[in-house]
Amino acid sequence: MEIDAKTVKALRDETGAGMMDCKKALIEAGGDLDAARKLLREKGLADAKKRAGRTAGEGVIGSYMHQQLGRDVVGVLVELNCETDFVAKGDDFGTLAHDIAMHIAAANPDWVSRDEVPEEVVQAEREVAEGKAAAEGKPENIIPKIAEGRLNAFFKERCLLDQPYVRDDKQTISELVDALSAKVGEKVEVRRFVRYAVGEEI
Amino acid sequence: MEIDAKTVKALRDETGAGMMDCKKALIEAGGDLDAARKLLREKGLADAKKRAGRTAGEGVIGSYMHQQLGRDVVGVLVELNCETDFVAKGDDFGTLAHDIAMHIAAANPDWVSRDEVPEEVVQAEREVAEGKAAAEGKPENIIPKIAEGRLNAFFKERCLLDQPYVRDDKQTISELVDALSAKVGEKVEVRRFVRYAVGEEI
Repeated sequence: MEIDAKTVKALRDETGAGMMDCKKALIEAGGDLDAARKLLREKGLADAKKRAGRTAGEGVIGSYMHQQLGRDVVGVLVELNCETDFVAKGDDFGTLAHDIAMHIAAANPDWVSRDEVPEEVVQAEREVAEGKAAAEGKPENIIPKIAEGRLNAFFKERCLLDQPYVRDDKQTISELVDALSAKVGEKVEVRRFVRYAVGEEI
Repeated sequence: MEIDAKTVKALRDETGAGMMDCKKALIEAGGDLDAARKLLREKGLADAKKRAGRTAGEGVIGSYMHQQLGRDVVGVLVELNCETDFVAKGDDFGTLAHDIAMHIAAANPDWVSRDEVPEEVVQAEREVAEGKAAAEGKPENIIPKIAEGRLNAFFKERCLLDQPYVRDDKQTISELVDALSAKVGEKVEVRRFVRYAVGEEI
């Protein structure tokens, strides 16, 4: 079938995937933009999984300073890693690092990913959620499921990768990172971040 | 005695102390610039001690990014505290925070002050220094003193406040901070810092 070049370009601009990948996805999807987008995302994720075992030792330090009354009162550093310095010095990569730093300044996450949340914190959150569900009179057999749902909400609130991006809440930070990974064809990962606010308790 | 206004200004520019303080110090020192500088430093330090018990909850986050091949590969944040937002928003204060961040990027200290060095690290360093002095055949009765000297050198190398400022090694970072404290008449202190370098071991 014939695919309109404009549609290909629109899909490319939106997903960051290559021109040929977009065209192939559109052909595969019979011209359906939504289905093609889904195919690309699946492909992107599949690629990201393939790259999981590789070493991401290059990268940049992204930063963002938030001002109040003309002085810097919040500062963020984030290390974004990739596999080669060729990708690290690209504009897209630096921009993503900066955008994530800006997001961290605003959203103030506690951990990079849910894997980093200490087991005792997870356990305490689960117990609180179970206790609450019981107090609300929920049937006992569905309490663990309700607690699991609330635990997920907790991760989405406090873990950077699970958080919805503050400038576009239809994407999580994890999806932003995976989209760049799919585009550049390398493993891309947030290794660590730090956020300082003047006078906060430590 | 008559003190030349030019000398007063020179002393002021160098020490950051107020015009009248500089004039008084020069009169007290009989016009001797070196002696006046020393008097000011003693006064500055005395003032800093008076301020030690106060709370420094205002301040700024200083930052510095070091580039290599066009991308940020080292990032530093430092929290510099003072007592009032009036001082915090001053140019001198912001400049000092930035200069200390730049210093940290270059000198890569491990702790803010020697108080923060874990006791087991101090103990291990002392033992190594004692062992080395013994191996060099130093008399046993002076070994503790030699070890103390080497421990001091270790602090000067690894603790931010003890380090000589990279842009003027005649001053330590602690002296820079105390000079600003004397100038603004408030407690000024480095609370914490963090330094990220791409790909470093954590």
